[in-house]
Amino acid sequence: MIDEHQDINIPEVLQEVEAAFARYEDALVNNKVDVLDELFWNSPHTLRYGATENLYGFEQIQAFRAGRPSQGLSREVLRTAITTYGRDFATANIEFQRSGSTRLGRQSQTWMRTAQGWRVVAAHVSLMG
Amino acid sequence: MIDEHQDINIPEVLQEVEAAFARYEDALVNNKVDVLDELFWNSPHTLRYGATENLYGFEQIQAFRAGRPSQGLSREVLRTAITTYGRDFATANIEFQRSGSTRLGRQSQTWMRTAQGWRVVAAHVSLMG
Repeated sequence: MIDEHQDINIPEVLQEVEAAFARYEDALVNNKVDVLDELFWNSPHTLRYGATENLYGFEQIQAFRAGRPSQGLSREVLRTAITTYGRDFATANIEFQRSGSTRLGRQSQTWMRTAQGWRVVAAHVSLMG
Repeated sequence: MIDEHQDINIPEVLQEVEAAFARYEDALVNNKVDVLDELFWNSPHTLRYGATENLYGFEQIQAFRAGRPSQGLSREVLRTAITTYGRDFATANIEFQRSGSTRLGRQSQTWMRTAQGWRVVAAHVSLMG
């Protein structure tokens, strides 16, 4: 069991997840589809609720990325909250604003450490209001 | 590290999380605020992005529950995806429709096992479209 006090945000674990998260954000705004694919867990259990679509399993997510327009992905991150639980789990949550939009976006990810590195096992993106 | 194959959806762990999730859903639609408070991790790291609000820390979440109208909370769950990773972590995702609304709702939760039982450490609720 995770110790609720000692095992939260262990500095070296937090650093790893922050690096993985930064890599994801860079890949997203620059539409580096191979990196986005790499950072999502390759499993039928992986899930992504997007602003306008609900995707179940790695294959649906991958197909969505491949078919997505590569323009208009730039955004400003307004607030970031990353928390790690023990050595193998983390959540990463941000508020963001897309260029040219006034709506507030929120992105939530759950990350897991795998033998290949940190991977997103579930994600939810929405625009508020 | 979690074994990506052997440690996913261990039957007795999945059963525990399904029970905790069912208890949460019942508490939500019946506005049992004490149960909702109990099932969210009592920590400043806990986070809840709601349909119309972004709440950081258990205290903000608790204050929101206390001030929420107790009517109009009923909803139909259309699809459920619960996955457990090892013995201490899980995600629970649902698509739902509120009574009287045509918009599709999505609710994502990340659960952690604590000494007191399973708790939601992060949640995101949104209405699509």
